Amino acid sequence: MPSLESYKSGLDYSYAPGIFPSMECLTYRPEKVRRLLVHSSAAGREGTEKLCALAENYRIRIEEADKALSRISGKENCYAAAVFEKFEDELKEDASHIVLHNPGDFGNVGTILRTALGLGIEDVALVRPCADVFDPKTVRASMGAMFRLRIRVYDRFEEYREQFPERKLYPFMLDASVPLREAVKDKPEAWTLVFGNEGHGLPAEFARMGQAVRIESNDKVDSLNLGIAAAIGLYEFMK
Amino acid sequence: MPSLESYKSGLDYSYAPGIFPSMECLTYRPEKVRRLLVHSSAAGREGTEKLCALAENYRIRIEEADKALSRISGKENCYAAAVFEKFEDELKEDASHIVLHNPGDFGNVGTILRTALGLGIEDVALVRPCADVFDPKTVRASMGAMFRLRIRVYDRFEEYREQFPERKLYPFMLDASVPLREAVKDKPEAWTLVFGNEGHGLPAEFARMGQAVRIESNDKVDSLNLGIAAAIGLYEFMK
Repeated sequence: MPSLESYKSGLDYSYAPGIFPSMECLTYRPEKVRRLLVHSSAAGREGTEKLCALAENYRIRIEEADKALSRISGKENCYAAAVFEKFEDELKEDASHIVLHNPGDFGNVGTILRTALGLGIEDVALVRPCADVFDPKTVRASMGAMFRLRIRVYDRFEEYREQFPERKLYPFMLDASVPLREAVKDKPEAWTLVFGNEGHGLPAEFARMGQAVRIESNDKVDSLNLGIAAAIGLYEFMK
Repeated sequence: MPSLESYKSGLDYSYAPGIFPSMECLTYRPEKVRRLLVHSSAAGREGTEKLCALAENYRIRIEEADKALSRISGKENCYAAAVFEKFEDELKEDASHIVLHNPGDFGNVGTILRTALGLGIEDVALVRPCADVFDPKTVRASMGAMFRLRIRVYDRFEEYREQFPERKLYPFMLDASVPLREAVKDKPEAWTLVFGNEGHGLPAEFARMGQAVRIESNDKVDSLNLGIAAAIGLYEFMK
């Protein structure tokens, strides 16, 4: 492995910045971890000790790398980062899914991953162009939740559709006629919620691919934030 | 009015950065607007024209201020900003409220303001220490929703309590025994949802002040993001 670079989407590896995200990475994707970077000032701290013990257990190389850490995180207080190989999963056939179509914001994607895991959805698809799910900013916003999820990035939505042709889709659209609380009444066992881009939502043709849903909100705001909409949708569907 | 400074919490005025937040500010708080700043490159654009027409209508001074705009926004593409006086409202007695106790993150506060307005809650209290609700970053994250809300910042929670002694409080706490979907079953007409800090939640004594509530989530994540928790709580209570 060459010397560590600042993160770029073209790299085949990335960084989980922070003690907690690194711990999630080492715990749930140990086979993907290439090295563990720790900051010299973090030696002896409880979190660091646990992290290092875990790394030693898996015979993962531990490196003091103050400069690399500040380069990766852009913040001073990044005490550790796991360097991990990017991965691609198969989504589970009989589980419910969430599909993010062209999400643009790292923070939104990370927050949605964390929310999904917390509410019990473990299969997430993204459709390009989209915020890089492996960018350290996304990993940080997800608090490492991404390492416990099955994640797959598709070039086109049709590829997802071909892989799961039978399942009922619920595209979330501002102009849908069916409100969320109605839509959940006849939901099948495994469903897929689809959310569009922050600025322009989903293309109109999604309305014909499934049961379009809108979240009951008033016209005093343009729309809800993407992460908020996804959370409300997931919460209602998981009840 | 002296020349414009970079925003600091000690100032008695702030900035609504961006065309849309400025429009909300001019539309719903015109009496608070001191000036409208526009970028030279924005002349002739539709949004700018509308904004300037509105300002002229209220006889608000319009100023070309490229340097001030880039200083305020920290981004290059800020085409306009309303300079507004900070305000303090009385919360509505018979309406439902949301109380944010010591929130630390501008983005979370702004997103919650936007969500509240969208879901129909128009009275928001904050308890210090908390992220500055008038910081341009908060204004931006709220997309200007804050100008349509009644907002009040308290030094201590007790002050809020003394002002609204009768109403039922629902503090959101990770260790509460009553799940959200149960708690809403016997909710009164006007209620108050209380959310704590991102890192440490609400102090334990809040459990005795009302009906503590938890959002049904699993232990795979520490907690949900504050903005997400507030959105789910509001959605369920507004149904």
